[in-house]
Formats: sequence, C-alpha cells, structure tokens
Amino acid sequence: MTALDLPPVDPLPDDTRRYFEVCAEKLGLVPNVLRAYAFDIDKLNAFTAMYNDLMLSDSGLSKLEREMIAVVVSSINRCWYCQAAHGAAVRQLSGDPVLGEALVMNYRVAPLDPRQRAMLDFAAKLTESSSRIEESDRAALRAAGFGDRDIWDIAAVAGFFNMTNRIASATDMQPNPAYHGAHR
Amino acid sequence: MTALDLPPVDPLPDDTRRYFEVCAEKLGLVPNVLRAYAFDIDKLNAFTAMYNDLMLSDSGLSKLEREMIAVVVSSINRCWYCQAAHGAAVRQLSGDPVLGEALVMNYRVAPLDPRQRAMLDFAAKLTESSSRIEESDRAALRAAGFGDRDIWDIAAVAGFFNMTNRIASATDMQPNPAYHGAHR
Amino acid sequence: MTALDLPPVDPLPDDTRRYFEVCAEKLGLVPNVLRAYAFDIDKLNAFTAMYNDLMLSDSGLSKLEREMIAVVVSSINRCWYCQAAHGAAVRQLSGDPVLGEALVMNYRVAPLDPRQRAMLDFAAKLTESSSRIEESDRAALRAAGFGDRDIWDIAAVAGFFNMTNRIASATDMQPNPAYHGAHR
Amino acid sequence: MTALDLPPVDPLPDDTRRYFEVCAEKLGLVPNVLRAYAFDIDKLNAFTAMYNDLMLSDSGLSKLEREMIAVVVSSINRCWYCQAAHGAAVRQLSGDPVLGEALVMNYRVAPLDPRQRAMLDFAAKLTESSSRIEESDRAALRAAGFGDRDIWDIAAVAGFFNMTNRIASATDMQPNPAYHGAHR
Amino acid sequence: MTALDLPPVDPLPDDTRRYFEVCAEKLGLVPNVLRAYAFDIDKLNAFTAMYNDLMLSDSGLSKLEREMIAVVVSSINRCWYCQAAHGAAVRQLSGDPVLGEALVMNYRVAPLDPRQRAMLDFAAKLTESSSRIEESDRAALRAAGFGDRDIWDIAAVAGFFNMTNRIASATDMQPNPAYHGAHR
Amino acid sequence: MTALDLPPVDPLPDDTRRYFEVCAEKLGLVPNVLRAYAFDIDKLNAFTAMYNDLMLSDSGLSKLEREMIAVVVSSINRCWYCQAAHGAAVRQLSGDPVLGEALVMNYRVAPLDPRQRAMLDFAAKLTESSSRIEESDRAALRAAGFGDRDIWDIAAVAGFFNMTNRIASATDMQPNPAYHGAHR
Repeated sequence: MTALDLPPVDPLPDDTRRYFEVCAEKLGLVPNVLRAYAFDIDKLNAFTAMYNDLMLSDSGLSKLEREMIAVVVSSINRCWYCQAAHGAAVRQLSGDPVLGEALVMNYRVAPLDPRQRAMLDFAAKLTESSSRIEESDRAALRAAGFGDRDIWDIAAVAGFFNMTNRIASATDMQPNPAYHGAHR
Repeated sequence: MTALDLPPVDPLPDDTRRYFEVCAEKLGLVPNVLRAYAFDIDKLNAFTAMYNDLMLSDSGLSKLEREMIAVVVSSINRCWYCQAAHGAAVRQLSGDPVLGEALVMNYRVAPLDPRQRAMLDFAAKLTESSSRIEESDRAALRAAGFGDRDIWDIAAVAGFFNMTNRIASATDMQPNPAYHGAHR
Repeated sequence: MTALDLPPVDPLPDDTRRYFEVCAEKLGLVPNVLRAYAFDIDKLNAFTAMYNDLMLSDSGLSKLEREMIAVVVSSINRCWYCQAAHGAAVRQLSGDPVLGEALVMNYRVAPLDPRQRAMLDFAAKLTESSSRIEESDRAALRAAGFGDRDIWDIAAVAGFFNMTNRIASATDMQPNPAYHGAHR
Repeated sequence: MTALDLPPVDPLPDDTRRYFEVCAEKLGLVPNVLRAYAFDIDKLNAFTAMYNDLMLSDSGLSKLEREMIAVVVSSINRCWYCQAAHGAAVRQLSGDPVLGEALVMNYRVAPLDPRQRAMLDFAAKLTESSSRIEESDRAALRAAGFGDRDIWDIAAVAGFFNMTNRIASATDMQPNPAYHGAHR
Repeated sequence: MTALDLPPVDPLPDDTRRYFEVCAEKLGLVPNVLRAYAFDIDKLNAFTAMYNDLMLSDSGLSKLEREMIAVVVSSINRCWYCQAAHGAAVRQLSGDPVLGEALVMNYRVAPLDPRQRAMLDFAAKLTESSSRIEESDRAALRAAGFGDRDIWDIAAVAGFFNMTNRIASATDMQPNPAYHGAHR
Repeated sequence: MTALDLPPVDPLPDDTRRYFEVCAEKLGLVPNVLRAYAFDIDKLNAFTAMYNDLMLSDSGLSKLEREMIAVVVSSINRCWYCQAAHGAAVRQLSGDPVLGEALVMNYRVAPLDPRQRAMLDFAAKLTESSSRIEESDRAALRAAGFGDRDIWDIAAVAGFFNMTNRIASATDMQPNPAYHGAHR
C-alpha cells in the first residue's frame, strides 16, 4: 500500500472494522488511504472526520464540484493516488468519463461553465502560488456567484488535497487497482 | 480575522467555549485560526482533532521539531499567519529566538544538526515538488536515523501545513498581534 | 476538431483518402490530428512522413517505448490531445492499462525497469530544461544500454512531441472521443 | 558536428548530394543539422520536407517573421545551434543586425510593431507554458491582424523549433562556425 | 562573520576606524557587512559610498521606503543577513514592528497604501523577472505618483540589494545578533 | 539612452568630462550607462568607483574571467544592455568571437576548462537561486583552485551584474550601437 512498514493495528477496533465494511459495500472497496492510516486509529479517525466533513457534508458546492477540485489540485501536484481515486469519482458523479480525463490532463481545456472555471482557477492558483492570492481572487469567485461560505469550502477542499497529495507522494501510496477502470 | 464574513456561532457551544478558555490560559490567547473556524463547530472540531494529534500527541519527533517543519513549510509558502504563529512557537520551545528567525528567513543557512537538516530538506522538497519524492528521499531520512513511523509524521506535519497555509492565504487570515513580539 | 476554421481540402486527393481509409481500418478511427492537417496536403504529408518514420520504422526502441516517451512528454506539457491519444496507445501496446495511467499522471512513481526509467528521465529533462542537457545525461543513457542511434531516437521522439503538443495546444485540438475508453 | 557517433551514409545518395550542393551554393555552407541527419536518409528527407514547407513555402507570415519566431523560441530554450543559425538568418533577411541580436538577447526590449510583438508573444507563451494557451491568446493574434491560417503557421513554426532545439541540445549539435560572423 | 577567511586589514586605516566608531555610536553596532569588506579598504569604500548615496542621500523616496524595498528584495532572495538587518531598520524607522515582519514574510498581505504597494510590486518584479519589465511597469509607477528620478531610485535600491543579497549568500555572511531582537 | 527623462548635468564637471574623454579614447565610445548615470555626479562616481575596482583592479580572476561572469549573469537575466556591452568585451579580451556568442547563448555548451566552468556554475547558481548556495558550492570553487579572495571576487562580480542588469532593464537602457558589430 505504501513504501513504509506501518501495518494496520490487528485486530482493528470494532468501529473501524464496521466503517471499512460500509466502505466496501458502498464503494466496492476500502480505499487504500484508510488502510494506510490504520496503523494508528486516532490518526485514521481524525482523517476520516475531516474528509467526511469536507467532501460529504452540506455545502454550497456539489459533491461533484468538490471532487473536481480534488482532481485539479492532485493533477497539479501529480499525485498518483489522488488522481486515480478522485478521477474515478468525477467520472462516476458526473456520468461523464471525458470530464474526469480532462481534469486529470489539463482542466484549462475542459468545457466548463464560468462558475466551475472560476472555482478551479482559484483552486489552481491556491495550489501553485498561494502567497499571491489577493482580494481580487476572492472577488472573482464572488462575481461567479460564490458566497463567503463557498469560498471557505473551496479553500478548505483545495487545501485538504494539498495535504493528502503530499502524504501520498511522501509514502508512495498506491491507489486501489479498481479505480483505474471504473466508470469509463 | 479573515476577509470572509463568517462570524462564530453565537453563543459558542459549551465545549468550544471551554476549549477556548483553556487556550487563553495556556497560550495567553485564542489563536485566530480557531475563531475563524468557529462559524461551523464540526469543522472546528475536525481541525483541532487533527492538529492536536499531529502536533501534540506522541511521536518520534519532538514538539519543537514539528514546529520547525511548520515554519519551514510556511516560509516556502509565504503564509503570513503560520509563519507568525509557528515562528513564535519555535522561539518559545527552543528558547532560541534566532533559530525561529532563521527558519522563517532561510532554513538552509541555519546551524542545524544533520538529523534536523534531513528532516527539513524532506519537508521542503515535499512542499516544493512533491511529485519528485522517490525512494532515495526516504532513504535519506532513514540514514539520518528516522524510522518509518517518523517518516509518516514528517510527511503528515508537512502536509498539514501545506493545507493550513492555503486556507490562511485564501482567506487572508490575520495572526494574533501578540505572536509578533513573543519570545524574542 | 480545432479552434481554427481550416476545413480539409474537398475533395481529398485520392492518396489522402486512401490513407485515411487505412487508418480507419487499422485504428478504428482517423486521428483528428490528420483531419486537422488536411487543410493543406503538403503539410499533412510532411507530418505523416515524419511521424511514421519516428514511431513506426526500425529503431532500437520498441514501439511501446516510443509511445511511452510520447506520453511522458505530453504529460509534462499537459497536452490534452496527445495524452489522450498516446495514453491509449500505451495501454494497447503494453496490455497494461495501469501503465498508461501512471505515465499520464506521474511517470516517476511507475514501476519501470532501469532502461525505461533512464529513457524517460532523459526525455523529461529534455522537455523541461533542454539547455541543461550535458554529456553526463548522454552517459546515463549509455550506462543503461542505449547506443548513439538510440539516443538520437529518444531525442527525436521527445522533440517531436514537444512540437505536436504545442500545435495541439495552440489550436485547441480535440482528441477523438474513442481514445478515452479504449484499452481500459 | 554532434556528440553522437553517427556518420553520414557514404556515399550519399545522388539526390542528397545534389541537395547539399544546392545548399552550399545558395547559403555558402551545408548546415550541420543536415549533415547530422544524413546518417539516415529517410529521416533527413522527412526533416527537410517539413522544414522547407514551414520556412520557405507560401504563408501569411514573411520568411523574416518565421525566422524571428525561430530565434525567439530558440532563445527561450537557449539552443546554441539554432540561435546561431537563425540569428544569422534574421540579420540577413532583415538587413538589421541589431534586430538579430535583440531577438537572441531579449525580444521584449526589441522595437517591434504590434503585429510582430503579438506573434512573438504567442510563440513565447507557446514555448514556455503551452498548456495555458486559451482562446484569449488566439483572440490577441486575430486582433493583431492574423487569420486562422496564420495562427496555424505561427504555432507550427514555434512548435518545430521546440522540436529542433531539443534534438540539437540532446546531441550537442554544433553550428557551422560561419554563422557567427555572418551579416554583422 | 563569513565562511571566507578574509580578515580585516590590521590595523585599520584611521578613516575606517573612525567610520566604524561612528557606526557603533549611531547604530549601536558595526554592521558585519562592513567588517566583512574591511579586508580591502578600496572595496569597503566603494561599497559604503554607494550604500550611503542610495540609502541616505536626498531622494523622493523616504528612508523608510528605501528600507522597505531592501526587505522585500531580500525576502524574495531569502538573504539571511539582509532580511535581519533591514527588517530591523523597517521596524525602527516605521515604529511598526508588525510591518517589518510582514515585509519579511509576504509583502502582498501587508496593509500598504497604493504608492508603496506599486513601489514594492515594481521592486519584486525587478527581482524575480527583470527581463519582463516593460513600459507598462514604469507607467504603473507614474500612475502611483512617482517621477522619473523616483523610478531610478526604486530601480537602483532594488538592484543594489540584488547585489548584496548575493554577496551575503555566497559568503554565508552572518548578521549581527543584535538585529534580531531590536525594535520589536 | 533610457526610458527615463533624466538628462546629464550640463555642463558636466571637469573631472567627469575628462573621464568621458578617456573612455572615448580607450574604448572608442562613452558607454551609455555612464551617460545615463550622469544626471547625478555622486551616483556616477559611486558607480564608476565600484565598477573599476571590481573589473579592473588586481584580482586572482583575469579581466576576461570577470567579463565572462558578467556575460553569463546578464544572459540569465536577459539584460539587453549588458549582454551587448560585455559580450563585446569577451570577444575583445579573448580574441575568440565564438566564445562571446556561446556565453550569451548558453554557457553550458561552451568549451571551457574546469576552472572557468566551476566559476561560471557558481555565478549562475548565485544568479538563479542564491538562497541555495551552501558550503558545498564554495568547496567546488576551492576544488577548482580558487582561494577565498577569488571566491569573494566571483561573488562580487556576479552580484554587481545582478544589480546593473536590473537597473538597465528597469530603465530600458540602450547599449551603444557600436557594441553589436565590434570584435566579430
């Protein structure tokens, strides 16, 4: 799963075991990132709590939009794990396999509506040169229809994948093979 | 506190209020990042759970070493909030105000022992070009005495500040003024 | 096919028509790049002559290896057309769909033998910073078993895709949709 | 001529020999790039066919303009061979030796009319960051008076030198010494 | 003082000794850069003549503004010596320790008036990519109220610290420890 | 001479007038940089004092070597004025016009002895990423035969042209036309 010798605690606590069973049922697999974190249940729980809040809870951004940010950030950082896993998610949620490919390969050529383009431009700039974000960048999001809570969510999702991309690259985390062919 | 109009929930839940009181007692202030997150208590709790696990729980890295990573990552990303807050933490934990300055200004000129230099070189590369991390980079950490669990922790701390730097820059988060003069 | 209003000559010359029919038979499609060039038959013929010589004629590099170079160069340049078309070719020629994905997403994490890794490292450096190529870079290829003719071929294929990537990006050339799902 | 041991076929085929004689008559020299390619006559012919079509056939761009693109692209890529050879061509075709120098050294400070500046800005962006070319870049060319066929030609010439720069740098190709002093 | 074994001439000439005494009186220290240069009195005198003319003589830029440029240039170049010494000068001249910190950490987030922001944007661009400075950059300074003499002074001060930053980094020059805590 | 309206003081002081006459005699021209500085005689004198000390006084570096550094630094910064003026100086002092061209176009392909290559590699790194200079870089100079005073001089010359390149680019300073054709 990774280049580090950090096996999951054995046996897994009941809650964790059940959570992995739910993943397997809903997604058809237990994402390797969860198994990688399972060497320390506190770290796993902190990760899943933040992930689920960001990607699945209520937001002005649709779940697809949050996955689009995940893919664009991961493409800029060239993260093998996250491009594979979240590229599959974009293909699934959008029902548009070409969109998933385009966001992996170069979001600037994808046919996006102005709202989504503004959202991804902000996420890309935040990834590439965060210190140059200024009020004009936030103003561009507001002009595209985003409110302040939406801006927070765009920043938080883009920030989160800038974290996970680095943890995955640092540890050579391997995506579950099933992601590659899914929803093509 | 930030450029976004996202006021804290009012009144704060009792747990949050007490947590802020503990901060104020121990640190002499409630870090603005916590107030910024307090518009949504679930997000605040997810953030503090991950922060406290990474920066305060058991690890082969000392608390100072984790703060050193925080400063170097934040310096590369030129994050105003995090350089101010964690620069102060390095000054405090090390008792060496010049070290805090050097890590903000250019860690490559700081007088570091080989272990800490290897740790910071890995964190810097992970920040600047994570897709180029390879086995040889992990080998350099092992040669400096770090185990696999330590490598995870270095990656996780460096990843975390790559997240928070971006959330702070995206929202123009302001550090508490008290950080600037502390522990000089 | 592209953002430029440059329709194919109509009717196509007999030779061109037959060439397109051969493509359709062998590949199941006429690559859009050929249709895009068909506004000027001399340009089309010059392009196909060079392409066929480089990618299909005798060489110490296998056809798969030449396609691997194509994908890595196109990934660095983030060319939508060429990543899609040549990613499919790698999947087909290797029979390994995950390899095609890995070369698009980050060739540095792909499980490559030392020969192919040296070949792709040279192609990547030639793409990113050609002015820094020195004798030591050629020596690394020789140490990996490549002869001088092979070095020419690696350079010529990498050079060619640095050309076509730019023509495709300059004109917003769209890959045939069939590439995306092929050989998954 | 290059760092590779790839001597010309010997004897050269009659057509090639005659072509080299024509070069020697017209240019006063046989460009080393042709001798370098002459280890394989099919590759040589494919190269000269594309070169002659791009640089010498009918186009909305003057021959000088195409050479200006060649120099600016080669300057960005710091290609020794191509800056020397095409710098000389700009000096010759323009009758303005200072223009040739300025395009080698920094085209942004050269006194160019708006059409040529727009052309070179497009070529420069295509060279430095082709994945960021968007409709607005093509619109800037149209606003400067270029038609869609001209845009193709600018892209094709800029693309071509992005190829040849890399082949020359990969092989340490040496320009004919006569270029350096010519047309000063 | 530096990584080079270049001790001051001994004894110092009377003029130099007196100059150092004046420094010690006015500044409370003899800046290490002066001691570093004192291995060759001609070089020291050339340096101090240029420094004093640029930073202390009449100009449309206030002394604080010149120090602000020094800090922003030195921050981009991550020069340990110059950030420490001139960061202290900004804190002293402005009476605003937070401003000194902000210019070290990320001038783009500092609360600057439009004149100072334009001045620092020009200095930053001149530092990062001087070959891209064009008339529009000078026009932005003029629009912010700067005259041609002021533009010269901004360029000359920014240029000067691009020199000293490199001399300090090349020699590992150490700032006087007293700078770090001064004017906090 | 520049884009700024800063005419020389009129009449020039006698010393300055005589200095310009000496230049005209020895060089055949008064370098435009001197005329550009002549709006303020103190600034002119500070500049010429530093220039003459660095480029003409005793040093372990030959005058040609100092000019070689000037050209390589100016090439990286793409300074129009300094590449023209100091490229001519390299051609003159070396008696090798091709060397002057090679240093302008790409010093990495020039046939240099190991001492000069080490010197120029240090100057190039100091120009491109001065904050990454470390003891190993100074050690490479020492291994190539340079002493500590030589290292200072390499750093000081490279630093100086990083200053003048920026002043010239900031002001659009034009080189004397005679430089272009000289010593070809």
